Amino acid sequence: MITLAVDCMGGDHGPRVTLAACRQFLDSHSDAQLLLVGRAESLQSFAHPRATVVGASEVVGMDDPVEVALRKKKDSSMRVAIQQVKDGIAQAAVSAGNTGALMAVSRYLLKTLEGIDRPAIATQMPNEKGGATTVLDLGANVDCTPEHLLQFAVMGTALVSALNESASGGEPSVGLLNIGEEAIKGNETIKRAGELLRAAGEAKALNFYGNVEGNDIYKGPVDIVVCDGFVGNVALKASEGVASMIVGGLKSEFKRNIFTKFAAIMAYPVLSALMKRMDHRRYNGAALLGLRGLVFKSHGSADAIAFEHALNRAYDAARNNLLDRVRARIATAAPLLVPAVAAPAAGTTGSPE
Amino acid sequence: MITLAVDCMGGDHGPRVTLAACRQFLDSHSDAQLLLVGRAESLQSFAHPRATVVGASEVVGMDDPVEVALRKKKDSSMRVAIQQVKDGIAQAAVSAGNTGALMAVSRYLLKTLEGIDRPAIATQMPNEKGGATTVLDLGANVDCTPEHLLQFAVMGTALVSALNESASGGEPSVGLLNIGEEAIKGNETIKRAGELLRAAGEAKALNFYGNVEGNDIYKGPVDIVVCDGFVGNVALKASEGVASMIVGGLKSEFKRNIFTKFAAIMAYPVLSALMKRMDHRRYNGAALLGLRGLVFKSHGSADAIAFEHALNRAYDAARNNLLDRVRARIATAAPLLVPAVAAPAAGTTGSPE
Repeated sequence: MITLAVDCMGGDHGPRVTLAACRQFLDSHSDAQLLLVGRAESLQSFAHPRATVVGASEVVGMDDPVEVALRKKKDSSMRVAIQQVKDGIAQAAVSAGNTGALMAVSRYLLKTLEGIDRPAIATQMPNEKGGATTVLDLGANVDCTPEHLLQFAVMGTALVSALNESASGGEPSVGLLNIGEEAIKGNETIKRAGELLRAAGEAKALNFYGNVEGNDIYKGPVDIVVCDGFVGNVALKASEGVASMIVGGLKSEFKRNIFTKFAAIMAYPVLSALMKRMDHRRYNGAALLGLRGLVFKSHGSADAIAFEHALNRAYDAARNNLLDRVRARIATAAPLLVPAVAAPAAGTTGSPE
Repeated sequence: MITLAVDCMGGDHGPRVTLAACRQFLDSHSDAQLLLVGRAESLQSFAHPRATVVGASEVVGMDDPVEVALRKKKDSSMRVAIQQVKDGIAQAAVSAGNTGALMAVSRYLLKTLEGIDRPAIATQMPNEKGGATTVLDLGANVDCTPEHLLQFAVMGTALVSALNESASGGEPSVGLLNIGEEAIKGNETIKRAGELLRAAGEAKALNFYGNVEGNDIYKGPVDIVVCDGFVGNVALKASEGVASMIVGGLKSEFKRNIFTKFAAIMAYPVLSALMKRMDHRRYNGAALLGLRGLVFKSHGSADAIAFEHALNRAYDAARNNLLDRVRARIATAAPLLVPAVAAPAAGTTGSPE
């Protein structure tokens, strides 16, 4: 039996969305049970033999500063859900609450795994090959060192292996996000990260493909794209911006007049097939990697279908022992990770080659 | 009379595309003349009273390393075109050659303006408001300091003012690209850059809006988005990747069967109106800013329509005295730029606040 702790109060919509998703999830997973964490009065109407309400009197707001979530709201649904993982009662926690708070509380309660300096946020993006590219970090870390990027590669490999998402079927491939064609290819951090990843590849600790560029996230030559959290966050949001501009543009063009409205009716099945294929809800559920426990983050604006996907991902990760796999990967890569971390910091301002 | 020097050999297609674009450009600009730079035998068939062939025996290849362009191919069409600007014969140069080489040769021949440490590449992206957002830097610089970002803001303001592209009609607004909602908003460089930009805004040296996120490039709350070249390059390429995935997806869905092909015919006028609105060719022509001369970079894969847009942009910039405007802006901002640059470097590894 897999047990997930669900922060039912988090996200833009709270129990209205999370409970609907929990119902769907329970119906399709007969070997799962849920701990519904939140205010009892909001959750007690939910009756299911495999669901238990766990009371938590506070809610971390979407705009609450990290300090409030960490130091003030000690009985928040977010925190209590993560506590279930720490106490070994649940195998994973899922929350649609604010990212900064979720990362901080998870890190505070669960601590990072040995060999990992900083946890990372990993998510999936659909790619042209019809599969998904896993990208990390998405904003948990800014100013990453080359060693951090190597750790991300190791954790990302464990994630994709656990969720069986390598497009090739073999060892998942890792690309280092870089810039092309320009005079100086990458900064000093990226150059050094490339060396570390190449060494890890040669030592068979991971399957390093080489450098990739921003568009490769969507082209899909690799299973995993590793990058600094600042860069990853900007890339993800820029992508969302373009997609929403195109979709918005399509809608407004189709609404222009009676003829275009008729065209819209004709084109509807085609457009909806495309939207389904690229539906971002199918990719909801980012993993917080590098912690001594599994935590998944849903988009704050997730609807019930999207939140259910986040639950599914947490369930798959728990079922496939993601945590053990990450630990095993780190152990394998330890000879590479440890000296690298112990060596004098190859900072971002290193001397030119 | 405005004179542009055109590297006719650069880009993926060379004279076939560049000459066709030059013809169109001359037909629509009666007060312009062109210096067609390249191999005489490739260009001599082009006859126009306002076009003159300037011989150059070599061509910088799209894959040539910067050193080759700089040190070996001293009679390249790219270099000779930029030399025309240096010698005061042309007001601006346009090339579709490789970015790294173009930046290096431009910088070597023209030198940077006083007060500017590093030139930047600025381009326009279409936004939801039906206008364009100017983004810089796009990859000329990695590891930017806060002072560099301030310089980019000053140069970007001059560019948008010169090309009269402020959506609001007033002083163009500047946003600093950052990440939101997460625990640590931005790295030390971005925090410090935010302080410098705020000070510049208070001193009326520019119109600083505040932080923006990746999706704001396409939402359009500001005229100018300032970022490190690594981040800008990744954001731009990720955006291209998403757009091409969506367009590719649309095409394949419409080709699926006889019904969807019929739907495509019905939807064609709508889709082509959308494509026209978002046509990236309309935004071709990136400015290399911060040099003592005007240089514009066309996409290497540009067709004649796209290349003509790059010529148009160079013409507009020359006609509107972009160079003088950049100089004047830098002079206004000098009190802010100079002490900042002279101060001990606020590097990317600064102490926490």
